[in-house]
Amino acid sequence: MFEIIKTDLAARIANLKTNHGTIQTPSFVPVIHPVKQTIPAKQIKEMGFDIVITNAYITKNSYGDEAIKKGIHKIIDFDKSIMTDSGGYQVLEYGDVPVSPKQIQDFEVGINTDFAIPLDKPTGFGLPPSTAKQYVQHTLQVSKQTLQSSPDNGQIWVGPIQGGEHTNLVKTSTQKLLDAGFKMLALGSPVEFMESYEYKLLAEMIITAKKQMPHSVPLHLFGAGHPLTIPFAVALGCDTFDSASYMLYAKQGRYMTPDGTRHVSQIKYLACPCKICTTHTAKEITEQDDSNAKINNIALHNLYTIKSEVDSVKEAIHEGRLWEYTIKKCRAHPRLYETIHTLTNNTTYLQKTTPRFKEKAMFLYSPDDQFRPEILTYAQAVAQFKTRKKIILIMPETTQKPGYQSPQYHALKKQKDFDKIQICQYNPFLGPIPIEISDLYPAAHYVATRIPQEPKQFPVFAQTWNKFFANNKFEEIIYDKTDKFLKSFVQSIPYTIRKKRLVVHSPS
Amino acid sequence: MFEIIKTDLAARIANLKTNHGTIQTPSFVPVIHPVKQTIPAKQIKEMGFDIVITNAYITKNSYGDEAIKKGIHKIIDFDKSIMTDSGGYQVLEYGDVPVSPKQIQDFEVGINTDFAIPLDKPTGFGLPPSTAKQYVQHTLQVSKQTLQSSPDNGQIWVGPIQGGEHTNLVKTSTQKLLDAGFKMLALGSPVEFMESYEYKLLAEMIITAKKQMPHSVPLHLFGAGHPLTIPFAVALGCDTFDSASYMLYAKQGRYMTPDGTRHVSQIKYLACPCKICTTHTAKEITEQDDSNAKINNIALHNLYTIKSEVDSVKEAIHEGRLWEYTIKKCRAHPRLYETIHTLTNNTTYLQKTTPRFKEKAMFLYSPDDQFRPEILTYAQAVAQFKTRKKIILIMPETTQKPGYQSPQYHALKKQKDFDKIQICQYNPFLGPIPIEISDLYPAAHYVATRIPQEPKQFPVFAQTWNKFFANNKFEEIIYDKTDKFLKSFVQSIPYTIRKKRLVVHSPS
Repeated sequence: MFEIIKTDLAARIANLKTNHGTIQTPSFVPVIHPVKQTIPAKQIKEMGFDIVITNAYITKNSYGDEAIKKGIHKIIDFDKSIMTDSGGYQVLEYGDVPVSPKQIQDFEVGINTDFAIPLDKPTGFGLPPSTAKQYVQHTLQVSKQTLQSSPDNGQIWVGPIQGGEHTNLVKTSTQKLLDAGFKMLALGSPVEFMESYEYKLLAEMIITAKKQMPHSVPLHLFGAGHPLTIPFAVALGCDTFDSASYMLYAKQGRYMTPDGTRHVSQIKYLACPCKICTTHTAKEITEQDDSNAKINNIALHNLYTIKSEVDSVKEAIHEGRLWEYTIKKCRAHPRLYETIHTLTNNTTYLQKTTPRFKEKAMFLYSPDDQFRPEILTYAQAVAQFKTRKKIILIMPETTQKPGYQSPQYHALKKQKDFDKIQICQYNPFLGPIPIEISDLYPAAHYVATRIPQEPKQFPVFAQTWNKFFANNKFEEIIYDKTDKFLKSFVQSIPYTIRKKRLVVHSPS
Repeated sequence: MFEIIKTDLAARIANLKTNHGTIQTPSFVPVIHPVKQTIPAKQIKEMGFDIVITNAYITKNSYGDEAIKKGIHKIIDFDKSIMTDSGGYQVLEYGDVPVSPKQIQDFEVGINTDFAIPLDKPTGFGLPPSTAKQYVQHTLQVSKQTLQSSPDNGQIWVGPIQGGEHTNLVKTSTQKLLDAGFKMLALGSPVEFMESYEYKLLAEMIITAKKQMPHSVPLHLFGAGHPLTIPFAVALGCDTFDSASYMLYAKQGRYMTPDGTRHVSQIKYLACPCKICTTHTAKEITEQDDSNAKINNIALHNLYTIKSEVDSVKEAIHEGRLWEYTIKKCRAHPRLYETIHTLTNNTTYLQKTTPRFKEKAMFLYSPDDQFRPEILTYAQAVAQFKTRKKIILIMPETTQKPGYQSPQYHALKKQKDFDKIQICQYNPFLGPIPIEISDLYPAAHYVATRIPQEPKQFPVFAQTWNKFFANNKFEEIIYDKTDKFLKSFVQSIPYTIRKKRLVVHSPS
């Protein structure tokens, strides 16, 4: 059902198979209104979306048995994969719905949806823990019953994780849905997190759920398909994510950009190269008489923007640059910037699914980058590195990489007693680089800014450095005493190790 | 000729008038080959470009007198503004050209170009200072003679600044061209800087020239129209910038993205919503049989990408968010990231043309942002703030802004001797915020990340803080002694000032 092709951080490019074809994830899932949809699902398919979501509860109320006769694919005129929400969102918005979990279950089976969701009770944001717990238990009970009593017909039942900002509830909710046998999960109701710009809470909720899940289980994220949330949601392991925002925003005249949403009347220059924006000015869209045409134009543009964001993220996974892409993206809003900590605090988790070797050079910018999983992997190799040599000579990275091919290294070979000296290079981000493993990824395959760095901002360097010195029995260190960065770390090694000044021979 | 409409940092949105219409700058100037052009200039005009550049030297060699008879606009079939390069680039690439400055001048006058460039001798990158100096002097002499002997016919003669990485030469070159009477200047040959990723040198070259120029003089940047260089070049004050890269790259199968260039065969997901990328996959473009069609497809996409970049930058100026946009963009390459220092080191210069008040909230992310011109302006107000009160109470910024409308402030009013206390809020980026000016932009109009900050990374805070305390005669400071950020600065004030613990009353 779910075949993983490529990974980076906790993200993956994968094929997700359903009764109506294969979806290549990560994938945005546009919301289709079963009755009021003004951009035909067919057109959305032509834009390149291979899955949509619609609402089983509204479909049931509007079409009743006709929907079961025709099937949901004919009702909304979309012949690829369809997910149906159960009405849980309506519970969140309007309180209870006058329909039982069993009725919704039978209806979702009847209309032959590809991804069915049991009638959950979303926790949203801001519930007291005890109430949230009740909702979670209710959702779990309904979900278990639904899954157990559903036919084995290729439909994928998606287990709804609830708990909101109460991460312990998210954790147990995830575990219990997996125990119940769900092969795909969905994380509930981040809409309210996003409305209050609590991106960090959303990120923490995602990683809490993910840490309980085997890699083989896909995760859907409810209602979070905005260009700002897509990069970190995917980086943390979300595979599909739905949203109606392309249309809801359009109705309010709100135009999505890669960096956020603007009211179209406030925009002067349309930077987007989509077919709407290359044939209209912002003024023309704003002043359009036909309000439906105006809404559809903005909605189409919004869809192009979301699709572009998802494809950018997929390409970043393909290139092994998702860390760089996600962190860059975080400068779109100061609250989004706070999600960087969810990446930097979870290196060990992200390391598991980050490739050990990459084709492209790693780009290193600011101290946050020391927490990249690739650097942890390298640091582990350095920490295990053992030599019998008693003298270590350490110098900054050379432009030519690997270090043992640099003219500086060749010049050192003329040093007296060269064979007795452990040569080592360093970079603030990577830590010490023993010359013997200066060709191990990423030591020979990175580009770092040449800005002088503050030693105190590099705790990862300190850690690797200390392990490296604890693991070897050096009696003498040779280094450039004018090197301010290095000096600070040399101070931390045992005073019994003799410190000698490096005399630099210019490379011949 | 040059009417400035809106500014942000050193960037401006302006109207530049020529004999063939008005160009709204900042504007990308696509290079049109006078003979081999495969994407018609007309099509480029339809994409929204209102100025192109072509080569007078090649046109002269290919068309001779026919070009003078028809005029350059008919020759390349473009009825809007045209700039003509003189052959200087050919001098740089192939050594001298067999044509005199006077011949090129007469030809440029004859073909009725809108922007004419004297036959310069570009310094490029890597010349010894003495040779570079000779080239600069030669260029200056030719330029002066050309300008003096040209008819006053509405053509704009553009003075070519040379000097390369030798900033003193750039400086004198700029001054002397202005003295000679040039109303527009062009900065020479950054192509080689860019090829060696020396973006920082390019940024320094631009700001060196700009600091010599009055705001009323537009600046063209030769050969630097890449999505990576456009944001900082515009932020530092470049108004137009030409490049042939859209086509040269296409011939090598190189596809531009907002974050850099990729070989199209290495791309899997086309994230761009332009008409080429929404109708082709990367594989289809790569495997296209017709090599001309393939080149034109990539070139068109590249043009859309460049146009999108320019429009994004223009919209950022319009919104007053160019600082945020430029710094975000710098995470596209570690060498580009180094150009941030050219912004942060030139706050005082950038302040002159940055609006004092902006409509949009200022976004604050990382310590670099303390060097924003808006913050300098606010810090100057704080440094001038005087009170006769002897007691100061300082507390962190409140969520509600301005601070005097916050519940925390209202709670303080119940404090004993409230009238004798100077109330002050603070934010690490903005420094101290006296409550009386907590509504002065941007004190009431910013969003900062809520990440705990390191005092040592905020030298601007320290500066403002010290001036504020030097300028007032406080005898007592009341503050929360558990506030780690503040504590570090309280230590720096005279020991004669009594330190008292703030007792926080929860707001009613």
